[in-house]
Amino acid sequence: MTEFELIERLTKNLPQNPTVVTGVGDDCAVLDLGLADRFVLFKTDAVVEGVHFQKGAKPEQVGHKALGRCLSDVAAMGGRPTTALITLGMPEDFETNYVEKVYEGLSALARRYDVAIAGGETTSVPGGLMLSVSLLGTVDKAKCVLRSGARTGDAIFVTGELGGSLAGRHMEFEPRVAEGQWLAERFMIKAMIDLSDGLAGDLRHMLNRSGVGAEILADAVPISRAAKLRARAEGKPADCAPETAKKSPLLAALTDGEDFELLFTLASRDAVPLLDAWRKRFPDVRLSCIGKITAEKGVRLRERNGARPLELHGYSHFA
Amino acid sequence: MTEFELIERLTKNLPQNPTVVTGVGDDCAVLDLGLADRFVLFKTDAVVEGVHFQKGAKPEQVGHKALGRCLSDVAAMGGRPTTALITLGMPEDFETNYVEKVYEGLSALARRYDVAIAGGETTSVPGGLMLSVSLLGTVDKAKCVLRSGARTGDAIFVTGELGGSLAGRHMEFEPRVAEGQWLAERFMIKAMIDLSDGLAGDLRHMLNRSGVGAEILADAVPISRAAKLRARAEGKPADCAPETAKKSPLLAALTDGEDFELLFTLASRDAVPLLDAWRKRFPDVRLSCIGKITAEKGVRLRERNGARPLELHGYSHFA
Repeated sequence: MTEFELIERLTKNLPQNPTVVTGVGDDCAVLDLGLADRFVLFKTDAVVEGVHFQKGAKPEQVGHKALGRCLSDVAAMGGRPTTALITLGMPEDFETNYVEKVYEGLSALARRYDVAIAGGETTSVPGGLMLSVSLLGTVDKAKCVLRSGARTGDAIFVTGELGGSLAGRHMEFEPRVAEGQWLAERFMIKAMIDLSDGLAGDLRHMLNRSGVGAEILADAVPISRAAKLRARAEGKPADCAPETAKKSPLLAALTDGEDFELLFTLASRDAVPLLDAWRKRFPDVRLSCIGKITAEKGVRLRERNGARPLELHGYSHFA
Repeated sequence: MTEFELIERLTKNLPQNPTVVTGVGDDCAVLDLGLADRFVLFKTDAVVEGVHFQKGAKPEQVGHKALGRCLSDVAAMGGRPTTALITLGMPEDFETNYVEKVYEGLSALARRYDVAIAGGETTSVPGGLMLSVSLLGTVDKAKCVLRSGARTGDAIFVTGELGGSLAGRHMEFEPRVAEGQWLAERFMIKAMIDLSDGLAGDLRHMLNRSGVGAEILADAVPISRAAKLRARAEGKPADCAPETAKKSPLLAALTDGEDFELLFTLASRDAVPLLDAWRKRFPDVRLSCIGKITAEKGVRLRERNGARPLELHGYSHFA
């Protein structure tokens, strides 16, 4: 059973009430707690030693990543993050100094986006260090961007460059909080998702929620330097673990995961005005138009020699 | 370093912003998200296999406990729980069936208090099963009960019976959600806390936040049947692990922990009206007046042969 099949089983009959506007299946839960013109965004996520970071990782980066993952999800709704709680799971041999530095990394990132850390809990754990972050945010009710709004003919955009994140970027990425808010405020963004499983997989999540398909232009996919370097390096034999096998740069960009960039769609007539305004507001962040939404379901990858169905589902994981 | 010393170090310089009314140091974080007359309550907590439950525990009870702990904290503010997210950490050898039953236990308890489960995350973990719950609630701004409001002369009350919870009750306790809301709505509750570390420890947390002391009447402390049974059983030699050593029933009630009852204070003139109204509303739940708040700091235990300082701090743990 894949992660997604299990989640589908677990979330089939969850208790609901009128606070929940959008629950399972989007980047954050969207809640109506009674504010006149704003929804509350609610997100939880965890990083675990040996899964999301390695033993010996820089502690500041561990804290940064734990909060950054949740910030990226609030960004993908066009929201403003406000308040976090931390559940800290500590192994028996934890070092106070290391844990303090984890909190320094958390706090530095929180301060940059004016997020309060309002407390949390500590617990002992038998395995390695674990941080579970809960994050609240708010978003203008009229400007909350779901995964489900993509429509035929929309242009598909992605921020930054994709692939090779495990070479380092996954521990130090900057969540696209400013970009997500700016996009939702300034443009009619139809659908948005943050890239955690890889473009191929996360695009499919958005398409499924929207009931549409997409055509992606292979040449337009922004490929990171890390993904290119890795492809140039010696490949491993084909029978070794897939995550160490040689990948083409494009395949890496489509499937590596942990990019924490924003993937979104808007009406194609807005594409050029968006690119113009983006260059002025975020001159250091690449923005690429990588394709369009189609009525035909599924994803097609258009290369120079024609279009073919893209069967890749991104990084299938329990992480 | 104890858990409390570490928490003090970690939480000394956390980023704050105007959403935080009360952060670290109360049962829940109290947030002002802009609602006219209600605060938002925000709580996170985790249960971990081998720490909060044993491998082979009934899965429905694991889910029940995970959510019940957070509900108990919202109850201790007089709040109404509304919406939860679950972060599920799964070991490699997890059984789908077991995890589904964990969710059944979670969902059954959530439905009883009209709490929505709005989603969450799954992750793999190297150790045993882990559930981290994030819970939101709301509370009337004028009726939110903190730990810090206890005043000299207040009567001290506790719900239920204490001690011996590890014999079974810790996996199936009913969080005092209805009781907490009723208390906050009907009476001027000055300070409240839920008992997770044991009466001796949690009372001290409340007293420290309030800047007062207390005198506890040993004969008035309600002792559970489980604590009495355990005291009657053969004690282990004194040099074995403290958690298996023989305890007097009173000591168990003061220090065992995981009672998940409510400890609160109110003006002594309200004590008799409270007891009368309580008996009508909650005939099956014991309510005991166990002492009074004093200007003199510290806790004194009054027994038949006089009063002595109570040095016990409850269950000091990282759990």
